[in-house]
Amino acid sequence: MSGKIAFLGLGAMGFGMATNLIKKGFHVTGFDVYAPTLERFTAAGGHASSTPKDTVKDAQYIVFMVATAAQILTALFDDEKGAIHSLGKGAIVILSSTGPPEHVPLVRKLLDEKYSRQDIELVDAPVSGGTIRAANGTLTILAAGPDSAIAAAKPVLDAMAGESLYVIPGGLGAGTNVKMVHQVLAGIHIAMTSEAMGFAAALGLNTKQAFEILRKGRGSSWMFENRTPHMLVEDKTVYSALNIIVKDIGIVTAGGRSANFPLFLSSTTEQVLASGVSAGLGLIDDAALVGVYLPQSSSAILKLASSSATLSPDDPKLLLVEKIMAGVHLAAAAEAMSLGVKVGLEAKKLFEIISTAAGSSAMFVEATMQLLSGVWKERSSVDDVIAELTEAVEEAHKLKYPLHLTGTALQLFELAKLKGLGKEPGIAVSKVWDSVDGPYFPRAQV
Amino acid sequence: MSGKIAFLGLGAMGFGMATNLIKKGFHVTGFDVYAPTLERFTAAGGHASSTPKDTVKDAQYIVFMVATAAQILTALFDDEKGAIHSLGKGAIVILSSTGPPEHVPLVRKLLDEKYSRQDIELVDAPVSGGTIRAANGTLTILAAGPDSAIAAAKPVLDAMAGESLYVIPGGLGAGTNVKMVHQVLAGIHIAMTSEAMGFAAALGLNTKQAFEILRKGRGSSWMFENRTPHMLVEDKTVYSALNIIVKDIGIVTAGGRSANFPLFLSSTTEQVLASGVSAGLGLIDDAALVGVYLPQSSSAILKLASSSATLSPDDPKLLLVEKIMAGVHLAAAAEAMSLGVKVGLEAKKLFEIISTAAGSSAMFVEATMQLLSGVWKERSSVDDVIAELTEAVEEAHKLKYPLHLTGTALQLFELAKLKGLGKEPGIAVSKVWDSVDGPYFPRAQV
Repeated sequence: MSGKIAFLGLGAMGFGMATNLIKKGFHVTGFDVYAPTLERFTAAGGHASSTPKDTVKDAQYIVFMVATAAQILTALFDDEKGAIHSLGKGAIVILSSTGPPEHVPLVRKLLDEKYSRQDIELVDAPVSGGTIRAANGTLTILAAGPDSAIAAAKPVLDAMAGESLYVIPGGLGAGTNVKMVHQVLAGIHIAMTSEAMGFAAALGLNTKQAFEILRKGRGSSWMFENRTPHMLVEDKTVYSALNIIVKDIGIVTAGGRSANFPLFLSSTTEQVLASGVSAGLGLIDDAALVGVYLPQSSSAILKLASSSATLSPDDPKLLLVEKIMAGVHLAAAAEAMSLGVKVGLEAKKLFEIISTAAGSSAMFVEATMQLLSGVWKERSSVDDVIAELTEAVEEAHKLKYPLHLTGTALQLFELAKLKGLGKEPGIAVSKVWDSVDGPYFPRAQV
Repeated sequence: MSGKIAFLGLGAMGFGMATNLIKKGFHVTGFDVYAPTLERFTAAGGHASSTPKDTVKDAQYIVFMVATAAQILTALFDDEKGAIHSLGKGAIVILSSTGPPEHVPLVRKLLDEKYSRQDIELVDAPVSGGTIRAANGTLTILAAGPDSAIAAAKPVLDAMAGESLYVIPGGLGAGTNVKMVHQVLAGIHIAMTSEAMGFAAALGLNTKQAFEILRKGRGSSWMFENRTPHMLVEDKTVYSALNIIVKDIGIVTAGGRSANFPLFLSSTTEQVLASGVSAGLGLIDDAALVGVYLPQSSSAILKLASSSATLSPDDPKLLLVEKIMAGVHLAAAAEAMSLGVKVGLEAKKLFEIISTAAGSSAMFVEATMQLLSGVWKERSSVDDVIAELTEAVEEAHKLKYPLHLTGTALQLFELAKLKGLGKEPGIAVSKVWDSVDGPYFPRAQV
């Protein structure tokens, strides 16, 4: 075979992934609907092509990193320009765009039943990690599919992921399911970063110092550490457009609906993000979501970053911000892990992947270890979490500051209490999601 | 006794109530912190006074209709100007301002323990019904307290309420509890009116015709019929400022927290309302809350009201709007009635009061009759409601229109399904709130 790669979709992520493959010595032909990108790609040593059909000619590997599942269908199956019309025998197709869980099996079905292309190897391979890791070949890749397909795709997957390649059991769609569960957390943590930093500003805290203290505490998350610095300086760079996480959280809530699984925090997040898009923030960096929380004073975050006041780590107002982050992230861990088990994923594998990826948080690590071991530590009870969130909600009520996610999380803990779990450790909130058939995470008998 | 009335708090509601009492032949001395109001009050035949202490001199009845519970405490107990310093022996104090449930018992405690005024008769008497009914003496009044106090206050209560006087068993605080449950519904319905009409506009419907059709259907509510007309014409009149329902829903969620009772829809409503205040809408009419849903295009509602398109009652987009209203109002009825029972109110009495007041909705009447009888009609199953709300959420996702309340309601129905209630009638969503001690509304064995 040729060893040549066709790469479709050269956006912020795709461009980095494709040029990384060039650097690793592959012959890469790229395609994108935006012509200037193709010029940049040629300048970076790539080959450009003007239709998916032409792009995949002579390619052994075909990587899709277009924006949506619908774009994959068009690029693959368009009657005139679709890749299907010149896919070589035994070509290895790697689907890395984030789509809904049912998407990859649908592509397989179309290949088999409509085009009789059982010879094509297909890999479900969504990615996570951002543009920097895309460009240096250390993306998290969640690969699933038949063993033969994974083995065939391995040279390219390794080149894109390095040590961050995870092979997910469960066949086509399982990788996408892991990505979906990951995005529950990523989405909630992105929205929570804005809710928390906006709250810090509404409380009049020095936002830069608040960030430096909070990032090291129990309320921190990967997204919080990654996104907050953009809020604290005047910087209009779009690292990740709001529309991207809007699309991803839409896949999450659609997945919840298909599985008939309630996702309270994901749903609240979806509505907050939609408010951001309605306010005109869709194409700008998702750190600007804080504008939804401070519609008349989003510059306060920036101003307070250079405040002369010194913030003590024990400042009661700062602790309030930490409390909402910890409480929401705890409930988010329960929501995400329960969804994962519900859609048939292996909880331990999920933990292994997410805890080292962009969906992680201090509370996720702590709470999920409790769920997996069945040994629930008594660090904070459901009642304690209720007391902490109540304090914050009452302060926010005085300020008329909206705590969308915190409010929802508090109701989940109250519901757990109503079911008799008040004295149990905080992670007992996961029992809200127990189905009539029994719990997802049985507690160990100790 | 004198038969004279002292009336404290001459705002939009209080002014109407006090002048109505004058028309009915009472001698009324009024007090308000805003001097021009006192001039208007004198012109209307009232007597004006400059401190609470002076106002209550020689008065047999004292009505408090100030804005908050905190203002009552100041007006009553201020060291210098407080009414307490000149309250006549056996004076009858009627507390009509909406405060938290613990407020009225606290006033009794202060009267008894701090001022040894066991002679004062105290009535818990929150009101509902708006300025027009205030002015013509047909307000809904929810009176509670010792029999002797109710009997003593009756001439004034009758003059303010006519046939809409309800005597609530349960002692001081019970009237406030009924008002609180009523405001769960009032608050949700106000927010839902904006969510629904904004959705109609986002869907491009003729908003005026949509209103005319929806008001007659299963998605309608008293608030929807009352508030929507303000959205459809250019009218800056403040009928009820957003800050009023913000205060009331804050009392609701605080009540939920004191009772450790999860109020998912009330909490979502509180955050949506807080977003409205953050956006600068606090002092304008609450119908303007639709601006939170359409931040860049709130004028669309007005423009589409004069659209030339004719809307069919069967238009699928219009039906989507009706579906979200019906689904949210159904879950709201379950949330409100469960809270009512939780705080010790009698469900049948609650239904009797709310179904004829501003908190009513078509779904409230239907659903509560099912809860009370224990006979759950099979009109729509939990699965049916899920299907309807899912359709709307998916359409809204395409439009990036935030469905805050609908999203929350959908998760509640999904949770009910997870507990094995999918095939049960929609009102089975009430079982989400069942405590570990058993259901609030047992189902009849039929």
